[in-house]
Amino acid sequence: MPVGDIDVLAGLDGIPDGLAEEATELALIDHHVHGCFADPIDRATFEEAFNEGSPDPIPSFMTQFDSQPGFAFRRWCAPLLGLERHAAADDYWAARAALSPAELDRRLLARAGVEHWVMDTGFNTRAITGPAEMAAESGGATSEIVRLEAVAESLLAARPGAGAVASDFPEDFRAAVADAAGRAKGFKTVVAYRTGFDIDWTPPSDADVSAAVARWQASEEAVPRLVDPVLESFVVHTAVATRLPLQVHVGLGDRDLDLHRTNPMLLLPLLRRPGVRGTAIMLLHCYPYHREAGYLAQAFDDVYFDVGLGVNYVGAQSRQLIAESLELAPFAKQLYSSDGFGLPELHLLGAVLWRRGMAEVMGRWVAADEWSEADARRILRLIGVGNARRVYDL
Amino acid sequence: MPVGDIDVLAGLDGIPDGLAEEATELALIDHHVHGCFADPIDRATFEEAFNEGSPDPIPSFMTQFDSQPGFAFRRWCAPLLGLERHAAADDYWAARAALSPAELDRRLLARAGVEHWVMDTGFNTRAITGPAEMAAESGGATSEIVRLEAVAESLLAARPGAGAVASDFPEDFRAAVADAAGRAKGFKTVVAYRTGFDIDWTPPSDADVSAAVARWQASEEAVPRLVDPVLESFVVHTAVATRLPLQVHVGLGDRDLDLHRTNPMLLLPLLRRPGVRGTAIMLLHCYPYHREAGYLAQAFDDVYFDVGLGVNYVGAQSRQLIAESLELAPFAKQLYSSDGFGLPELHLLGAVLWRRGMAEVMGRWVAADEWSEADARRILRLIGVGNARRVYDL
Amino acid sequence: MPVGDIDVLAGLDGIPDGLAEEATELALIDHHVHGCFADPIDRATFEEAFNEGSPDPIPSFMTQFDSQPGFAFRRWCAPLLGLERHAAADDYWAARAALSPAELDRRLLARAGVEHWVMDTGFNTRAITGPAEMAAESGGATSEIVRLEAVAESLLAARPGAGAVASDFPEDFRAAVADAAGRAKGFKTVVAYRTGFDIDWTPPSDADVSAAVARWQASEEAVPRLVDPVLESFVVHTAVATRLPLQVHVGLGDRDLDLHRTNPMLLLPLLRRPGVRGTAIMLLHCYPYHREAGYLAQAFDDVYFDVGLGVNYVGAQSRQLIAESLELAPFAKQLYSSDGFGLPELHLLGAVLWRRGMAEVMGRWVAADEWSEADARRILRLIGVGNARRVYDL
Repeated sequence: MPVGDIDVLAGLDGIPDGLAEEATELALIDHHVHGCFADPIDRATFEEAFNEGSPDPIPSFMTQFDSQPGFAFRRWCAPLLGLERHAAADDYWAARAALSPAELDRRLLARAGVEHWVMDTGFNTRAITGPAEMAAESGGATSEIVRLEAVAESLLAARPGAGAVASDFPEDFRAAVADAAGRAKGFKTVVAYRTGFDIDWTPPSDADVSAAVARWQASEEAVPRLVDPVLESFVVHTAVATRLPLQVHVGLGDRDLDLHRTNPMLLLPLLRRPGVRGTAIMLLHCYPYHREAGYLAQAFDDVYFDVGLGVNYVGAQSRQLIAESLELAPFAKQLYSSDGFGLPELHLLGAVLWRRGMAEVMGRWVAADEWSEADARRILRLIGVGNARRVYDL
Repeated sequence: MPVGDIDVLAGLDGIPDGLAEEATELALIDHHVHGCFADPIDRATFEEAFNEGSPDPIPSFMTQFDSQPGFAFRRWCAPLLGLERHAAADDYWAARAALSPAELDRRLLARAGVEHWVMDTGFNTRAITGPAEMAAESGGATSEIVRLEAVAESLLAARPGAGAVASDFPEDFRAAVADAAGRAKGFKTVVAYRTGFDIDWTPPSDADVSAAVARWQASEEAVPRLVDPVLESFVVHTAVATRLPLQVHVGLGDRDLDLHRTNPMLLLPLLRRPGVRGTAIMLLHCYPYHREAGYLAQAFDDVYFDVGLGVNYVGAQSRQLIAESLELAPFAKQLYSSDGFGLPELHLLGAVLWRRGMAEVMGRWVAADEWSEADARRILRLIGVGNARRVYDL
Repeated sequence: MPVGDIDVLAGLDGIPDGLAEEATELALIDHHVHGCFADPIDRATFEEAFNEGSPDPIPSFMTQFDSQPGFAFRRWCAPLLGLERHAAADDYWAARAALSPAELDRRLLARAGVEHWVMDTGFNTRAITGPAEMAAESGGATSEIVRLEAVAESLLAARPGAGAVASDFPEDFRAAVADAAGRAKGFKTVVAYRTGFDIDWTPPSDADVSAAVARWQASEEAVPRLVDPVLESFVVHTAVATRLPLQVHVGLGDRDLDLHRTNPMLLLPLLRRPGVRGTAIMLLHCYPYHREAGYLAQAFDDVYFDVGLGVNYVGAQSRQLIAESLELAPFAKQLYSSDGFGLPELHLLGAVLWRRGMAEVMGRWVAADEWSEADARRILRLIGVGNARRVYDL
């Protein structure tokens, strides 16, 4: 599954041939990714889809094209839409708008060179392709990750107003998680968005959980949203008990999130609990706390991390971010992800920028004889494929 | 307004010609800067003026010349004083001491290539040149930024002991701000130095403000200093209501400041208030929290940032700092400043180091065909001039 | 005391000859280091000894060789064991296991080119060589640093259950510190591991100290461990009063430590105390808070820092870490250390990576004519030798 007609290492000098070949052709596992927009979108939606931080429309004085991901789209994706590299933003948009979502996916997804997409299917602000379409449009296999908060919220929504929900919730949720564990490769929590990490991580009793659910039901929101720290602790510990990997959103996200309360160091009280030992904890994204994440991945046998999302959002600066990710953590504790959502550009660019960044950073070390080329190739495979295969049992 | 006889890109290789020309000749807007010492200074004062952190004399075992800004002075400013590049510290001081302040300003300021200085006129630890002298000595235009804490303190000082001050203060302050808004281009707050950012950002009632002023008056300080969180919230919200840009000192400053309490993430409760929406919030300096500042500039339509001050203080390392500033934030949300204060070296070096850093960082991306050269030139103009012109309506 | 037959700058281009010579041959002072394992160790112990974060065995799915320090061992130390550069991990282990600890020390330590080891003798998880063996095996001189917590714990252990300990403790501890001050070059605190930095730094009264000791004695631990914030404040202030340098572990350490509570900014209340002024405070390691440490070293006359430990743990990435250490702090406020413990590889690599990183970072500045070569050489000597000689009076 080569990247095909994109020369992903174009413009980089001094990368040893074997490493360059490996970085170009390696079939990746993207261990955290979402589907693509199923329906045509307008330009405003498009531009908002690559500003992770803001839920607002892009202000009229600017275009989100003038950003690192915007420049990377125009560099790397424009040729796949029939344009010159660095095509103007308006031309890019016009070419993109002329293609159906499925055609866009076909043009972009396969060129990521991903052999397996591990998909978080629990976040759908609008119609998003599922695993079946992803597989068909990309040529890669797919697996599923189940989002804990979505499971809890659907349990509540399924029986609105029913007094029995509160008392049944602990058992119902455990059953739902057990059921999901039968088909999914892992779970994901967005506790970062809901309470931050600085909560009491003691596993709550069923009675405490039921009381929290009763309060939640009484809040009479139109769309129930899990924001209670007792319930966050409960859903996380319930998932941890299955021993499937648990993905944790860390760092960079939209502005609802208190970024400084998603510093992964605040997870220490969770990570130190004996019951958590033996379950792989996958710290996702982590920017700008990727050095802290690397520390935790060194300090705890079961902690892993990636710098997905951040790589796309810093574009041409991703080489530094990737270099910083290769500091404290043993190489067995790092993975590749794009965190692509909605725009197939993100699924592709995550791979292109990671291949470039890894090749350049490790190539520099090989050129200075600090690493051997064989080691560099091996670590590329480990982070790009091997660790994910082992942790998720793919 | 070219930089003239300084070859600002000397020693850098591989920068495309057009980008090099743009980086060398672009007439900048320095959107946050102070005046220069009006009177001759001694060597101790000189050395203390480029140690931002310490209010103490430089210890006898060292010279502040042995620092990144000290080395940059000797590299870039020495030739303008008639010395060789990298002249010895003692020679530098001797040459500098032989020139009048006005002559120093004339030699150094114009070579920054700044067409417009947006001056914070509210901090004068000693006699400092004002906008008129800056314009005359540099050839650039000037605008004024009014420091909120100075306005509040002068209101109090104007009527010491007068019982009426407390009850009149809210109205008097609003009037003073309205008056300032008629002549200034924006406001500035140093809440970072006074309380840190982790205060209650609810707009206080006039009664609460008056009570705080009464407490302040009762404190009987010789020089009244605004340190009350209620008053900080009041002065900030009063300025925000004018819709003029509000500059906020963030990060690096002298040691009176609790650096970790100036993490801009702690401004989230302020930034999320509906009343703040629509007013440009200019996060100044930000080191070492520039990645957090970039996140906020992406997440909030009205948040902007710069890495001024830091660029001067890290000298030869400024290229990495500038690279890190070009990560998350859209390019429409970044600006240039020197934060020069007292020493015209700082006004000049801010520009030289920024030109070099931008040229080198973006030049590397252009060389690797990650950015087009036209884009690099356009973003240079946007960050160096265009965004400031729009935000401050210059 | 040249590094001998290791070409420490192999593979680096463009470093001016004089700087290269200085970086290769400079005889260093390693101002914070421990002894080496005195007895043979097994492979598990070896691998655990270069994972700073985790107290657990290395998991079976990985080898700690697959990490930056592991790669650096295979690159730089393998030839000294008679192997090719980048020898396989198993071969490395076999060659190492065939040599006695003393022979390993003799092969590796001298090649660090360290003329003086300033040794922390207070941490011995197992038999470790002392100053005499270090001197004999390396050819360098040695001095001693006394660990405050170890002194306090040995006072308690010396008279277990004795009711008089609590009331005598303040005086006994002061006497022990005065005694140590007669033979040692400074003190060290691991308050980072015991309470974190966010404690009350007011010097406690003797009565408060005695009460804390009484509580401590009542806790009936098998091995008394000082974890009381009152006692931490007491031992630190007692050491500070001697005016000998006080080393403070900051940042990266094992997972018992709450990393975010070792942010050196949390030391501000200690550093601001008038009684602390005049005592050199040596912030050790600091990763990932080295930028904050640099800020403090600029802001306080008596604060110094290094990036030892981190340099070893990020291996090929150490050049960026070293570059980041050369930002805010005046060059008179930085030092070299390896923090080598147990494995003589760490004592050697600390020096090799520091020489390479400094040469490459400063060499780039010299090549771009931002620094003069003479300045680069001088600063190398200052950070590598001169500052330590002055501060510790060696």
